[in-house]
Amino acid sequence: MIRKIYNYYFSADKNLAKKLKSILGFTPKRLNLYKLAFYHKSMLNNNPQSFYNNERLEYLGDAILSTIVAEYLFKKYPNKDEGFLTKMRSKIVKRKTLNMVASEMGLDVILSNYTQGKMSKSMMGNAFEALIGAIYLESGYKKTKSYIIKDILRKYINIHELELIDDNFKSRLLEFCQKHNHSIEYKLMSKFKLDKRDRFKVGVYINGEEKGQAEDFNKKSAEQAASEKALKKIEIVKQEI
Amino acid sequence: MIRKIYNYYFSADKNLAKKLKSILGFTPKRLNLYKLAFYHKSMLNNNPQSFYNNERLEYLGDAILSTIVAEYLFKKYPNKDEGFLTKMRSKIVKRKTLNMVASEMGLDVILSNYTQGKMSKSMMGNAFEALIGAIYLESGYKKTKSYIIKDILRKYINIHELELIDDNFKSRLLEFCQKHNHSIEYKLMSKFKLDKRDRFKVGVYINGEEKGQAEDFNKKSAEQAASEKALKKIEIVKQEI
Repeated sequence: MIRKIYNYYFSADKNLAKKLKSILGFTPKRLNLYKLAFYHKSMLNNNPQSFYNNERLEYLGDAILSTIVAEYLFKKYPNKDEGFLTKMRSKIVKRKTLNMVASEMGLDVILSNYTQGKMSKSMMGNAFEALIGAIYLESGYKKTKSYIIKDILRKYINIHELELIDDNFKSRLLEFCQKHNHSIEYKLMSKFKLDKRDRFKVGVYINGEEKGQAEDFNKKSAEQAASEKALKKIEIVKQEI
Repeated sequence: MIRKIYNYYFSADKNLAKKLKSILGFTPKRLNLYKLAFYHKSMLNNNPQSFYNNERLEYLGDAILSTIVAEYLFKKYPNKDEGFLTKMRSKIVKRKTLNMVASEMGLDVILSNYTQGKMSKSMMGNAFEALIGAIYLESGYKKTKSYIIKDILRKYINIHELELIDDNFKSRLLEFCQKHNHSIEYKLMSKFKLDKRDRFKVGVYINGEEKGQAEDFNKKSAEQAASEKALKKIEIVKQEI
């Protein structure tokens, strides 16, 4: 019996190690650490040690990843200002991108063993960040950095495409309206205080019809967000999944 | 003339190196990098290279500092969950704390040479983060980490005090009201959508009189914030400067 259980866990571990090797390109030494990276808290409701899940590793991995990406961009773009770098970084480390990376890496193959079919997209991104935490704890900053740059950024992130992604929704909407001879107008619908700051609610009207509303702490950003909504409504920009 | 200018700059650099040595405990090699850490953008209005200021270094230093603190807490508190770690981290890396650290380090002595009297508190914190960026670029992650832990965290941050800081304003307010026999009531004043999320506006009433209002994405946090305002109003908590 004991032997059976032992064999079961041993073979499960061997299996995990094998899968990790094929995904990461190296065999982890501290396998339990890596295992923890796939433990989502929803799976461990009855565990009295509430922190025995991947949240601590995710917290660490999130910080490490964010800094490595910050440095990578800092060096890649010596002539770009902080605003550009911050924007590029958030395009890379945002949940949607990380979920995509995790999926392309094939983390779902491992994760599905732990989640009993309740796998969500954000669980993938979380497991990915937790995995970065585990890699960091096992091998330090330098090795984690070279792993992320070589095996993540260069492999899964098209940095030049990200650079070109035109998130200037307002100019795209203006262009569209010009081309199709539509009238376009932005209206300030309300201005109010939120957390002591001015907040602007803006609507965009195409041929007199409201196509999108949005709020932000500055008018320009609110117009951008309203334009994005309008573009989605008129199906120029695909709905985000 | 040239000699005079040369001497001026040479002695200015020597002066900076000396001050940095006394503040940091080591003599920086890449002095120009450290110099840049003190260049606030407001000082360089006429410089065509708009990025020739400390913002890029600040962006880098902010990331590095945040990760080092994240790791430090992760290891210091092996039994605390992600929520606690995140809270502690934000207590350490928040602007107010960094401004205080920068001030206690004596960065103002250097900064005042660059700012022509227009020094603000946040300039101090920014320069501090930029300095971390410079230290990192010169000496790497490991050395920066040991510098921050030994010479910043252990020297200027009372971590146990931070831990004990009672930011549970609601329980403090309840206690106060109990002690003084005041009635206290929280009212949900409005609930609305903000960026697709529920937003709650809550007011706290003491003896039927409104003493504070606040909004947040969950009711509990809104109550906390409203309680903090009430505590300030009745002068239990000192006004933040």
